[in-house]
Amino acid sequence: MHIYDDYLKPIREAMEADSKSGRMNENLSFSGTNLIKGMEYKAFNQQVPEKRLLPNLADFARELGLTPNFDQKLGLHQDFAHLKHSEKLEEHYIVSMFVDIKGSTNLFKKYTPQTVWIITNTIQRAAIHTCLIFGGYVHRLQGDGLFVYFGGKNMSAALAVQRSLQFASVFTYFVKEDLKKLFNEQGIENIFTRIGIDLGYDRDVIWGMAGIGEISEVTTCSLHTSLASKMQSHAVSNGIVVGDHIKKESLTLTEYYTPVCHRTNNENDRYIFQIPDERFNYTQYDFNWLSYLKRQDFIATDIYGQLQLKQKAVTIPNRNVANLAPIAAVSKPYYDFK
Amino acid sequence: MHIYDDYLKPIREAMEADSKSGRMNENLSFSGTNLIKGMEYKAFNQQVPEKRLLPNLADFARELGLTPNFDQKLGLHQDFAHLKHSEKLEEHYIVSMFVDIKGSTNLFKKYTPQTVWIITNTIQRAAIHTCLIFGGYVHRLQGDGLFVYFGGKNMSAALAVQRSLQFASVFTYFVKEDLKKLFNEQGIENIFTRIGIDLGYDRDVIWGMAGIGEISEVTTCSLHTSLASKMQSHAVSNGIVVGDHIKKESLTLTEYYTPVCHRTNNENDRYIFQIPDERFNYTQYDFNWLSYLKRQDFIATDIYGQLQLKQKAVTIPNRNVANLAPIAAVSKPYYDFK
Repeated sequence: MHIYDDYLKPIREAMEADSKSGRMNENLSFSGTNLIKGMEYKAFNQQVPEKRLLPNLADFARELGLTPNFDQKLGLHQDFAHLKHSEKLEEHYIVSMFVDIKGSTNLFKKYTPQTVWIITNTIQRAAIHTCLIFGGYVHRLQGDGLFVYFGGKNMSAALAVQRSLQFASVFTYFVKEDLKKLFNEQGIENIFTRIGIDLGYDRDVIWGMAGIGEISEVTTCSLHTSLASKMQSHAVSNGIVVGDHIKKESLTLTEYYTPVCHRTNNENDRYIFQIPDERFNYTQYDFNWLSYLKRQDFIATDIYGQLQLKQKAVTIPNRNVANLAPIAAVSKPYYDFK
Repeated sequence: MHIYDDYLKPIREAMEADSKSGRMNENLSFSGTNLIKGMEYKAFNQQVPEKRLLPNLADFARELGLTPNFDQKLGLHQDFAHLKHSEKLEEHYIVSMFVDIKGSTNLFKKYTPQTVWIITNTIQRAAIHTCLIFGGYVHRLQGDGLFVYFGGKNMSAALAVQRSLQFASVFTYFVKEDLKKLFNEQGIENIFTRIGIDLGYDRDVIWGMAGIGEISEVTTCSLHTSLASKMQSHAVSNGIVVGDHIKKESLTLTEYYTPVCHRTNNENDRYIFQIPDERFNYTQYDFNWLSYLKRQDFIATDIYGQLQLKQKAVTIPNRNVANLAPIAAVSKPYYDFK
């Protein structure tokens, strides 16, 4: 897919401008200016603005008929923000997802901390932007990883599950294909994602303020938040592991789920959590995100087997033209079929 | 040590009041009130106030001559807060520490989410309170774990290292001894800590705002922050693994550091990170926190081999008396010998 091309550009430029990497004798300037140490924050911020999708990703959002909400705050999901500094707890379903990016420590082998900063922050902004398109809520930044929630008071659990799987699949494709290609070009070790996702129903999830004063967040205490984190660590490189509740909420799609024990050939890996007294056995599954992605209405496969964004019937000759907004406005969302 | 006794009490009461645990036929009330589902937030908040150390821990802080600063904000270290929404990056040394609490997921086997909430939040408040006593900065809450920094613009790296080791040792002792005893009493599986600590010097650490808008934090991009996180995962149960820079900054104490490869008998574990071209080989060490703790001026060992807080010469007959503040004020700090 080309939807992340605009995010790859600053990463490539930062790599090439790096003073340590050795391929350049002198620090390269970025866009003509002579900088002391590779790309600077300002140049990065111009290339990857905080609150604007880059053009190809903006097209993608438009095709999907979705608009990101940039005005979230970490640790304060808007549907539960009233719990901050209250002494109340609330029960409400949520999808918890841990997105970990592995291997980025190796970037320090070749690049200065400043270049690593640009690389990881571009990847992180790409992740945040994509998450917001799919209606996710970014709860915590964790280095170049994320802890995100999907769902809330005005969304069914089934839709929250669907959006979480779409986000996870699109973002994994970006890292596994686009980023990998760039990293190979630059002769550096690969980085990859590992994602864990689980759903806790109302009865499973407590929302409340944790911590003290402003050293605090409105967060969940739930077996299924804890399990999502564990599942992330059970995933293979560029893999997504999900819990049984996720599978239950996407009933028609059972072909995408394989118990983790089938991969590991170890029956102990079938259940990620058991309470023998209650005969509670909770299965974890490898999620076949690539097959899932190929089946999405917004994805097409080109003659090289590469995934492409399926363009709507309306052709957009130039994405910068002023008349684009009205076209996008009439464009029907592909998947908001809840 | 008895310094955490007041924190153990609400945990024990929440466990005993739990409606699921089966040892009680009826939900027990807490302090006389009849509650529907175990202990409630309000009762918890009364027992473990956000911004007040519980009495024994307050004594401990007083003995050390240290005062916690409760007015921090997550993701906004006060010495670098000016970088928020700026386009600047800054280089400054920092000690990064990841405190993970393992095994708490098992609490869901026996207790309702609400009770788990009380248990994990009490442990988290104990951790935050202790961290603040030692001058640490709580950067992120991570479930019942923490990501904390030690150091800043008005503290030497050596003192930051010392305080980080003191905090990590005291907190590990709490979990390994006090909490373990309570958990055994209640017949539940143990929980334990794993801690990773590393120091990056000025040249190693970039500070800047990561993320977008309010989905952001002022954070570090540093090999040594990444390595601290990796070291945490290399630690044994209730173990602390630290990087070579930590050892370097505590020169007189080399007897407390053993290369991790001596434990694992695997030479590959000696260096946690290598850059062959630069002959950069970075060693990770198991930190013998118990020996270290016993050698602290503020610690004594009683006839049962248990560690105790060494009382200063001044006897404090009743810690609630009004004349305590003046006594504490003249009490010389034990270890602020920088």
